[in-house]
Amino acid sequence: MRRATFTEMNCSVAQTLEIVGEWWTLLIIRDALFGVTRFDEFSTRLGIARNVLTQRLDTLVEHGIMTKEPYQDKPVRHDYRLTEKGRGLWTVIDALRQWGDSWAAPEGPPIETVHTTCGHVMSARPFCSACREPVSVDDLKVRRGPGARVNNPLPAP
Amino acid sequence: MRRATFTEMNCSVAQTLEIVGEWWTLLIIRDALFGVTRFDEFSTRLGIARNVLTQRLDTLVEHGIMTKEPYQDKPVRHDYRLTEKGRGLWTVIDALRQWGDSWAAPEGPPIETVHTTCGHVMSARPFCSACREPVSVDDLKVRRGPGARVNNPLPAP
Repeated sequence: MRRATFTEMNCSVAQTLEIVGEWWTLLIIRDALFGVTRFDEFSTRLGIARNVLTQRLDTLVEHGIMTKEPYQDKPVRHDYRLTEKGRGLWTVIDALRQWGDSWAAPEGPPIETVHTTCGHVMSARPFCSACREPVSVDDLKVRRGPGARVNNPLPAP
Repeated sequence: MRRATFTEMNCSVAQTLEIVGEWWTLLIIRDALFGVTRFDEFSTRLGIARNVLTQRLDTLVEHGIMTKEPYQDKPVRHDYRLTEKGRGLWTVIDALRQWGDSWAAPEGPPIETVHTTCGHVMSARPFCSACREPVSVDDLKVRRGPGARVNNPLPAP
């Protein structure tokens, strides 16, 4: 069964999920952020069926999230690398990781993040691009943006 | 076909996706953050099959991401509301939104976010919890954390 599509939704969350929301895709991007580039390494680390991995990588290449470059001729083998557009997804991966560390890691965080410029174990926290103060969801409200269509159902009435 | 499970992966990204990574789930949470609480409103806004919506909401309740409270007796109808655990997912939704605004919103952002405490249209940017400077993915490295198992394959060798 073909999954439902979100392409008609006038919403950037939906458009992003349309591209990266399939089962496995965000874990492929996680591993690519860790430096994995080769099909066999993705396959071994993830334990994903090869036909599904091929399909997911092809979609990522098609959307300009990864590039695919041959590193060997006979047989042809490729490196898959994140583009700038792909690396931009680190905030999604990091938000998933932090939530999981808080709510789904009873043994503690499996990994820690170090900020190389200050040298400390840290987490990325959200601040306001306008006033530079920390923000929480309770301090935010949404309104129609420049790309809102007439029938945009967001936010809720 | 039952989807593959990520439960055995020693990774907070995978554990989070195991709970909220199914098709539709993050859009349900998006709408819940907008204030939607009722089955019929989720159903209308999303255009999702009712059996799939029931299944997704049940999973969210089961994981303590939403509560389900009756608001009417005959017939019984429920409000679904995000718990603190559920509201914690706003950073995931916001990261998906910002990436979509940057890379998948050719007509411009469908919505804008206002920081109520400063009054400006803004976006949430990541800063370092240790030194409070803005962080980018290029300034981060990962290492094994307290919850890493012996066979944890992260980060890449």
